[in-house]
Amino acid sequence: MRINGERLIGRLRDLAKIGATRDGGVTRLALSTEDSEARALVIRWASDRGFQCRRDAMGNLFVSRPGTEPYLPPIMTGSHLDTQRNGGNFDGIYGVVAGFEVLESLADAERQTRHTIELAIWNNEEGVRFAPVTMGSGVWGGQLQIETILAHTDGDGVSVEQALAEDSLMVPALKTAELGWSFHGYIEAHIEQGPVLERANLPIGVVTGIQGTRQFRFRISGDAAHAGTTPMDVRKDAFLAAVELHQRLREIADVNDTDVRFTVGTFSVWPGTPNTVPGAATFTVDFRSPDADKLRERGDRMLATASDAIEVTQLIHSEPVAFDETVRACVSRSAASLNLGQMDLLSGATHDARNVAHLGPTGMIFVPSRDGVSHNPREWTDPAHLAQGCEVLAHALLDLDRTAFSQAA
Amino acid sequence: MRINGERLIGRLRDLAKIGATRDGGVTRLALSTEDSEARALVIRWASDRGFQCRRDAMGNLFVSRPGTEPYLPPIMTGSHLDTQRNGGNFDGIYGVVAGFEVLESLADAERQTRHTIELAIWNNEEGVRFAPVTMGSGVWGGQLQIETILAHTDGDGVSVEQALAEDSLMVPALKTAELGWSFHGYIEAHIEQGPVLERANLPIGVVTGIQGTRQFRFRISGDAAHAGTTPMDVRKDAFLAAVELHQRLREIADVNDTDVRFTVGTFSVWPGTPNTVPGAATFTVDFRSPDADKLRERGDRMLATASDAIEVTQLIHSEPVAFDETVRACVSRSAASLNLGQMDLLSGATHDARNVAHLGPTGMIFVPSRDGVSHNPREWTDPAHLAQGCEVLAHALLDLDRTAFSQAA
Repeated sequence: MRINGERLIGRLRDLAKIGATRDGGVTRLALSTEDSEARALVIRWASDRGFQCRRDAMGNLFVSRPGTEPYLPPIMTGSHLDTQRNGGNFDGIYGVVAGFEVLESLADAERQTRHTIELAIWNNEEGVRFAPVTMGSGVWGGQLQIETILAHTDGDGVSVEQALAEDSLMVPALKTAELGWSFHGYIEAHIEQGPVLERANLPIGVVTGIQGTRQFRFRISGDAAHAGTTPMDVRKDAFLAAVELHQRLREIADVNDTDVRFTVGTFSVWPGTPNTVPGAATFTVDFRSPDADKLRERGDRMLATASDAIEVTQLIHSEPVAFDETVRACVSRSAASLNLGQMDLLSGATHDARNVAHLGPTGMIFVPSRDGVSHNPREWTDPAHLAQGCEVLAHALLDLDRTAFSQAA
Repeated sequence: MRINGERLIGRLRDLAKIGATRDGGVTRLALSTEDSEARALVIRWASDRGFQCRRDAMGNLFVSRPGTEPYLPPIMTGSHLDTQRNGGNFDGIYGVVAGFEVLESLADAERQTRHTIELAIWNNEEGVRFAPVTMGSGVWGGQLQIETILAHTDGDGVSVEQALAEDSLMVPALKTAELGWSFHGYIEAHIEQGPVLERANLPIGVVTGIQGTRQFRFRISGDAAHAGTTPMDVRKDAFLAAVELHQRLREIADVNDTDVRFTVGTFSVWPGTPNTVPGAATFTVDFRSPDADKLRERGDRMLATASDAIEVTQLIHSEPVAFDETVRACVSRSAASLNLGQMDLLSGATHDARNVAHLGPTGMIFVPSRDGVSHNPREWTDPAHLAQGCEVLAHALLDLDRTAFSQAA
């Protein structure tokens, strides 16, 4: 059985048109009109092929092709359709079209599987419009409580619950899926979003796990004062204090340690007029490491910078995750059987697979990202690599279909 | 003739209620509902006292009490009613109520003046809702073109022209005033907004002039990238580049030079999500000095930091202004006649008086600001100082009424 690379790329391009930006990027925030349109398109493709579609209470969509042994738990694949603001054409979308292509190729080949194969389209992976990230899979996997999440609001005060109701009007009525179930195995295909595979000149990454993340919001207080009249030496300039704190946090993180990622992704000052010395400054720190000890110890020291003038809030604390050995072996065997170069690598980004891993054996396949660029219109993966990643996914899922975990592990 | 200090404070308090914020500040942006309400209140006070009111095409208001020699040019005083976002209770408002109190005291005392005394309420001094600062007096004094200014828009896309039309519906219909005329003298009373008078323990500042200001906007380009996957050494982080540029600009300004004020009052990053390395950063620099050479030379070096990755736009370039010697002498004599301690000092902030000075002899009176704080709810001036400043204003205006400029200068 071979997958159809041209069809894969065609579907990817069709999706990338929805929410396309002037400079070649895509803005398709979770549960926006564009997101609903993309979801409706995939449902249309699925019903054209006679696949079953379901939707759960968090707006996660499931497209499935039944197996021959209905009492067996399903084998799953999946990813997401939502994007960053002016994000790329591949992040998330690739895993959805790759999974769909596997279903279509199986159907084309009239290939029966023992387990049902199920494609999950996780809602709101990016967390741009509604916090937090990986919201849909987080509720599905049981890490987040649906009652809490439904009440979260976007910048305009629209709740997740309202947005889900609007989305349900834009997509066809579907059967209802439960939130969370056990499965035989889950493999998510994704672009690497980093430079490792490209530098090693290898098409396939067997993902060993996901590095841990801690995110903090810092709010620094100073004294708002007139920019023209207040001598430099009597100012309590919150902007300057924030710049200094940021330097201190970089040292705590030890940004020269290659294990570490440290990013200030948001920064604002208050009241924010050119002729007023800032009285407050707010910024976020995103701190990642695959090393649980570094993440805990250095992150705790960041929290400990809190003082009368510095308020620290932890937004995210997710531990590093190690993927299932059996699933990793299936992916590796699949790449080897296709004579594709491969390497083990760690995911720098978080993914829905992190949440899914709580309910069953989970792994991921990475394909290279040109220049390691992601969350950016310049995001790009060679079409040959996209097809190869999809081929590896197809064969790994079929390998899983033959694998009994008690034997293989 | 004595002014009525209690009435002055009462009027100040009445105005401070309009747009009052929870923490004791005031938000009354130019031509907002609150601003129109404040303007309507002053017009009501004026018509209750039988003073004449006029409004020009920029929304500047004029309240006048006729002199006995109608062919003489008017003597003017004035300031503004608009505030910063969560600004103080005194900035601008004080000069309006002090001028109004002079008119009332003259009326109470049935005191005739040769020249008409005219109170100007300049529109949009703060420049928060609509750029630039001192907009109303700038158009009146001829430094700004009304056609250009009417088309300026606020953050919601509302133009100055539309906002003026809305304002005109909220205040009573008034006679139309021309834009700009010659006058015998103009004295503006204002809080110092700095710590100099308080530290010298003197109630009256005879303002010698206004320091020069240059404002720049810097936009730094980098590469937006994924915070989790992009190794630290391959990033082009616009936030870090902006922090470094800001350090360089501080060195160019020479912030240890006591002649200099240097402020980063706005700062933002793009796209502004916690898990994306910023691809762009924008901030403003407000650079001031009473020394025209320093302002020119250092400001030009700031402009020269422009490069492929750094875009620099000059927003404001206003030269230092020296006030009229005769007007300064009137203010100084008035303070001396009242046995009030005084000193000469330079204004760190810009004021409407800067623009007014283009059309006639101009000066200012400062009263102390507690802790030098302004543009902040903690802005405060002792009621005794407010009354003393108003008394000095009254007697200086009467002194001007007796002064022929050709003699005195």
